[in-house]
Amino acid sequence: MGEPMTQTKQRTADEQRLTGAPAGLGGLGADRDDGEEAFDGQEAEALLHRARELVDPELRAAIGTLPGSMRQVALYHFGWQHADGTPATGNAGKAIRPALVLAAASALGGPAARAAAVRAAAAVELIHNFTLLHDDVMDRDPTRRHRPTAWAVFGDVDAILAGDALQALALRLLAEDPHPASAMAAARVAQCVVELCAGQHTDTAMERRAPGDVTLDEVLAMAEAKTGALLGCACALGALYAGAAVEDVDALDAFGREAGLAFQLIDDVIGIWGDPHRTGKPAGADLAARKKSLPVVAALTSGTPAAAELAELYGAKGAATEEDLARTALAVERAGGRDWAQAQAADRMARAMQELARAVPDPEAAGGLLALAEFVTRRSA
Amino acid sequence: MGEPMTQTKQRTADEQRLTGAPAGLGGLGADRDDGEEAFDGQEAEALLHRARELVDPELRAAIGTLPGSMRQVALYHFGWQHADGTPATGNAGKAIRPALVLAAASALGGPAARAAAVRAAAAVELIHNFTLLHDDVMDRDPTRRHRPTAWAVFGDVDAILAGDALQALALRLLAEDPHPASAMAAARVAQCVVELCAGQHTDTAMERRAPGDVTLDEVLAMAEAKTGALLGCACALGALYAGAAVEDVDALDAFGREAGLAFQLIDDVIGIWGDPHRTGKPAGADLAARKKSLPVVAALTSGTPAAAELAELYGAKGAATEEDLARTALAVERAGGRDWAQAQAADRMARAMQELARAVPDPEAAGGLLALAEFVTRRSA
Repeated sequence: MGEPMTQTKQRTADEQRLTGAPAGLGGLGADRDDGEEAFDGQEAEALLHRARELVDPELRAAIGTLPGSMRQVALYHFGWQHADGTPATGNAGKAIRPALVLAAASALGGPAARAAAVRAAAAVELIHNFTLLHDDVMDRDPTRRHRPTAWAVFGDVDAILAGDALQALALRLLAEDPHPASAMAAARVAQCVVELCAGQHTDTAMERRAPGDVTLDEVLAMAEAKTGALLGCACALGALYAGAAVEDVDALDAFGREAGLAFQLIDDVIGIWGDPHRTGKPAGADLAARKKSLPVVAALTSGTPAAAELAELYGAKGAATEEDLARTALAVERAGGRDWAQAQAADRMARAMQELARAVPDPEAAGGLLALAEFVTRRSA
Repeated sequence: MGEPMTQTKQRTADEQRLTGAPAGLGGLGADRDDGEEAFDGQEAEALLHRARELVDPELRAAIGTLPGSMRQVALYHFGWQHADGTPATGNAGKAIRPALVLAAASALGGPAARAAAVRAAAAVELIHNFTLLHDDVMDRDPTRRHRPTAWAVFGDVDAILAGDALQALALRLLAEDPHPASAMAAARVAQCVVELCAGQHTDTAMERRAPGDVTLDEVLAMAEAKTGALLGCACALGALYAGAAVEDVDALDAFGREAGLAFQLIDDVIGIWGDPHRTGKPAGADLAARKKSLPVVAALTSGTPAAAELAELYGAKGAATEEDLARTALAVERAGGRDWAQAQAADRMARAMQELARAVPDPEAAGGLLALAEFVTRRSA
C-alpha cells in the first residue's frame, strides 16, 4: 500500500487532472456523485490492504521454503529485505491481482469462497512477480518500485533463477491445495503464463521494429496478453474457487481482461503526461525511451499531419531534449493519441462492466470487483 | 537415440576403456556375464527408444499449443526444426528421464500404470528442457546436442521466454491430467524445479570461486541438486502413477538420485578423459574451462603433492596449451581424482540398487530401471 488512506481523495482528484480523464471514467456503469466516488477509492484501498494482509503470510511461508540465494533475491524483490539481507518495511506492490482473486471469490461465493481462495491469490501474486523478475532482466530495466531491480543488485543468473523458482512455487501452492478447483486453477494459471510470455515476446520484438511498422491491433493484442491476461486469470480463479459455472468463470476472465486493458491505456497516458513526482519516473520517460505505447501507436497510425511529425521525432537518433519531449507529447495529443486512449479505456471499462453484470447481477455482490476495476483505471505508478 | 543399436556392444566396450571403469561397474547388484551385459545395453536402448515414441507425440502436441515465437524456439531446441523453421530429423536427447518415469510406473504398476504415466513422462522431459534452455543462457554455452544453443540462435529474450513457457506447459500437462496422482506429481515436480534452480545457482556461484575454496561436499550436493533431483523425481512420478506407497515413492526417488550422481561422476570422468569424437567436445574441454568437476575437486582436496600442482595449473591465467591440459589431467589422476570418482560412482550405484531392491524386490520387475541406471552410468555425451 505504502500511502496513508487519508490521501485517497486528493489523489483521485489529481489523477483526473493528470490523465485528463472525464470525471466519470472510473465510474462507468455506476452513477455516483463525488462523495461516493471518493468512497469507492477507499473501498478499493481497503480491499487491497486486506488482500495484502491475507496473502503476505502465504507468500512469506512459500518464499521461506526456498534455498538461501533464491530466498534472498525473492525477499529483496518483494521489498521485505534490503540487498544486504537486513529486514525492510516492504513495498511488495499494490496487491491488485490477489485482491481481484479474493473479490471474485467473494462476489460469487461469499466469505467462505474468499477464505478458501487465499492460497490461489498468493499463487497469482507469485506468478506476477516471476514475470516482473524476468521482464526486468530482458528489458534491462534498472528500477522497480523505486528500488534497483533484482538483476541490477544480484546479477542476471540470480534474477532468472529466482523467477523460475517463483513460477514453481506458485504452481506448487496450487498442486498442494486440496480445494476441488485447484487443478483447474493450476491449468488456467499455467496457460496464462504462456500468454504472458507471448505478450512479453511481442513487446520486446515490437520495440525493435520501426515505429511506422506497428499496428494498433498488434499493440492492443500485446497489452491484452501482457497485462489483461493475468488480471483476467485472477478473476477467473476467484470464480473457480467459488464453484461458479464455466460461463461465469469466463465472464469474470473477460471482465479482468477488459479492466486490465483499460488500466494499461490509462497507465500509458500517465507515462506521457503524468507528474514525475507521482509516477516515480522522469517526465515523458516513455517518450524519451521511444516506447511504442498505446497512445503513441494510435497517434502514429492516425493519418494526421501530427502523425508525420511524431514519426519524425520518434525516428530521430540520439537522446531527446526536454523541448523534443514536449513537442513529441504535443504531437501525440494533436494526432488524437490521448483522446483515443481515453475513449478506448472508457470503452474497455464499459465492456468490463457488462461482463461483470452478466456473472454477478447483484450490484452489492459486484461492488468489490467494481471498486477494484475503477481503482486500477484511476491511478498508476 | 541417434545411433543404430548394432553399435551397442562396441560402445559398451569403448566406455569401459574410456572411463577405466571396472568391468562390473554398470553391473553392480547383478551378476552377469559379458553376453548378458551387452543385452542390458540393448534393453536400455529399447526402453529409451520406446519412451521417445510414446512421449514425443505428447511433447509435440504441448509445444504445438505455444504461440509462434516460443513454438519456433522450442521446436529448434528439441531438434525438430532448423533455425529457419524447416523440419529437422531431430535429436531431442536420449529421453532418459521419460524412460525412467515409464520404467518406474511399469515396475510398480505394470503396463496399465506405464500407459497412464505417459503425460507425466512428457512433463518431466519439458522440465528438463526448460532448465537446459535457461542454463545455456546463464552459462553462455554456445552448443547443445552438437548444434548452436537456442540463445545463440534466437537471443536471450527468446530463450528465457521459451524456457518459462516449457515450465508452464509441464505443469499444465499435470494439472490437466485426470489421474489421481497428478496433483502429487505436480507438487513434486514444482519442488524439484526449486532444487534444480538451487543446483544451478550453486554451480554458477562455485565457478566464480577460487578452486581451493570449494569442498567435495559442496560439489556433491550441487551435483545431487542439479542432476540427481530430476532423475529422482522422474522415478518418483512413475511410482506415484503406479499408486505406490509413500515409502516406495521415496525409495524410487532415492534410487534415481543415486543413479543420477553416479551418472554425473562418470560424465565428469569422460569430460576429462573421454574421446572427443564421442563426446562431441574438444579433449579436456572441462579442464580447459577450469571446471570444478567432481574428479577435479576430489583431486584438489586430496592433500597430495599432485593437488598442489593441480591448484597451480587451475590458478593460472590465460588459455591452457595442449601440454598444460595433459599435465592437468595427469595431476588429477595422480591426486586420485579419477579413482575417487569411479569408486564413488560404484558406491552410488550400489546404494541405488539397494533402494531399488527395497521398492521393487522382484528382479524381473526391476529389470527396466536397472538397465536404464546401468546405461546412464556407461555412457555420456
